[in-house]
Amino acid sequence: MTLIYWLDLFGVAVFALSGALMAGRYQLDPFGVIVLSAVTAIGGGTIRDIILDVPVFWVHDVSYLFTIVMTALLTILLVRQPSRIPRRFLLIADAFGLALFAVLGTQKALSFETPMAIAMVMGVITGVAGGMIRDVLCNVIPMILRQEIYAIAALLGGALFCGLIYLEVPQQYAMIIAIAGALSLRLAAIYWQLSLPAFEIIDKRPPIK
Amino acid sequence: MTLIYWLDLFGVAVFALSGALMAGRYQLDPFGVIVLSAVTAIGGGTIRDIILDVPVFWVHDVSYLFTIVMTALLTILLVRQPSRIPRRFLLIADAFGLALFAVLGTQKALSFETPMAIAMVMGVITGVAGGMIRDVLCNVIPMILRQEIYAIAALLGGALFCGLIYLEVPQQYAMIIAIAGALSLRLAAIYWQLSLPAFEIIDKRPPIK
Amino acid sequence: MTLIYWLDLFGVAVFALSGALMAGRYQLDPFGVIVLSAVTAIGGGTIRDIILDVPVFWVHDVSYLFTIVMTALLTILLVRQPSRIPRRFLLIADAFGLALFAVLGTQKALSFETPMAIAMVMGVITGVAGGMIRDVLCNVIPMILRQEIYAIAALLGGALFCGLIYLEVPQQYAMIIAIAGALSLRLAAIYWQLSLPAFEIIDKRPPIK
Repeated sequence: MTLIYWLDLFGVAVFALSGALMAGRYQLDPFGVIVLSAVTAIGGGTIRDIILDVPVFWVHDVSYLFTIVMTALLTILLVRQPSRIPRRFLLIADAFGLALFAVLGTQKALSFETPMAIAMVMGVITGVAGGMIRDVLCNVIPMILRQEIYAIAALLGGALFCGLIYLEVPQQYAMIIAIAGALSLRLAAIYWQLSLPAFEIIDKRPPIK
Repeated sequence: MTLIYWLDLFGVAVFALSGALMAGRYQLDPFGVIVLSAVTAIGGGTIRDIILDVPVFWVHDVSYLFTIVMTALLTILLVRQPSRIPRRFLLIADAFGLALFAVLGTQKALSFETPMAIAMVMGVITGVAGGMIRDVLCNVIPMILRQEIYAIAALLGGALFCGLIYLEVPQQYAMIIAIAGALSLRLAAIYWQLSLPAFEIIDKRPPIK
Repeated sequence: MTLIYWLDLFGVAVFALSGALMAGRYQLDPFGVIVLSAVTAIGGGTIRDIILDVPVFWVHDVSYLFTIVMTALLTILLVRQPSRIPRRFLLIADAFGLALFAVLGTQKALSFETPMAIAMVMGVITGVAGGMIRDVLCNVIPMILRQEIYAIAALLGGALFCGLIYLEVPQQYAMIIAIAGALSLRLAAIYWQLSLPAFEIIDKRPPIK
């Protein structure tokens, strides 16, 4: 259980970092930075817990809040020297968050006896919803709705975890393999700019009102 | 109960269709299409169930998820020949979804002993929230906030259902009449472009910050 | 308990007013005005109650709904003579809503034995989330994400309330002092245009994808 807890806090920190960096581009004040970090870091897990109708994970444990505030404040200090943080590092951090949360979300849903297909959906929600809210608040089309391998990496993580649990692999190993799988796919997509073919409507008439 | 179940799945399918068609305009990949379909199809009912604090309808029944994935994939295949789908058909499908979900949402809320006025609000939420999230994700001003008879058709469905139940009409008939009423109003609004007068501020000073 | 109830209804009314006035700028029909008023007025408290996993406050009490509909309709009538409503009055009304909801949200969270730090976060959510949803629906960058003292006033209200309760000040007095504190800070920010320094990224390369 401790492994899950630390992975969870690590995921919160990397997503809080991505929210804080997004905030930097909008010239928010420190408090706005914390708000955007928090929304990004706990949005997905909050929606998952609400849909599963289980206690929301950060409501009775202050460590999540503390991690977010610390990450946001550290980002404000560190990013004033941005040359120290190569851009690729940030995409990798985001990929870590996505992979971690997708597998942890699937695991949590399974532990409440959700059917496997639904548990994978919960994993995808946990992995992508925080970033989605962040993008909507900043008036940007969400990453998941762009032509890029993003949510499918989250789905792969959940599917790997479900498959390994079904094959009775111990949970700890299943988790690490699944996170590694999702992370590898997302990193590969970043490095080689992989994408699925777009679904295009041939008919180019103006949109239906 | 079976009637309600099939109407519900039908509503999910038509809204999934509308989400998939919206996705087509944004050149999403097949996975993005499924995500947007799912959000549109189950967003409203999910919010309703969460507010009522009852189990979310799609969490323990995989058929909803299956219906969405099938609808999205079929749309991707069919819409490559868009001449086969007249635009009016799509608006009609959307109107079906709105009418169905508004009445089914009201019925579900009533079955948990919600006051009638609140049950109608739940019906409106069920009918319009999925499309609202779809539009927000795609950075479009939601349909409900445009000058058009949309949400009021949903309200009519809920009000008709409440009235007929109050008059002790059997639930099955009440449901069909209410759906027909909401659908007729929305279709009439589409055909004759009916709208309510806008609320305009006469004072044209720039918006308050 | 009655004091809390009336303060709550008053907060609902002032936020409904702000939603209705926003709607006026988008030429919505009367029904759209009511929808936007409702979302603004009860959005924050709804999210708070869902996260706390307690019954949503407006589901079993029709007075909230009634207050919103009345406020929206009155706004439509009154704002046709906008010279009677000075702009400053509106910002003050919004500040009242923010201060009231932040303290009432904190109080409600505390009454369910939430840790103090989390209760303050709940207060901020209650105070700002309704306006945030309103702005997102209207495709505007939310007020909380602009460089202005807004959410921090909500936080001050929650912190004052927690501090006074901790010092065993009777709840009624703690509430009034905390609301006054949050309101004063927000009003001061409006009058003297106070703001915190922005967090700016020095590196001006284009945003990370």
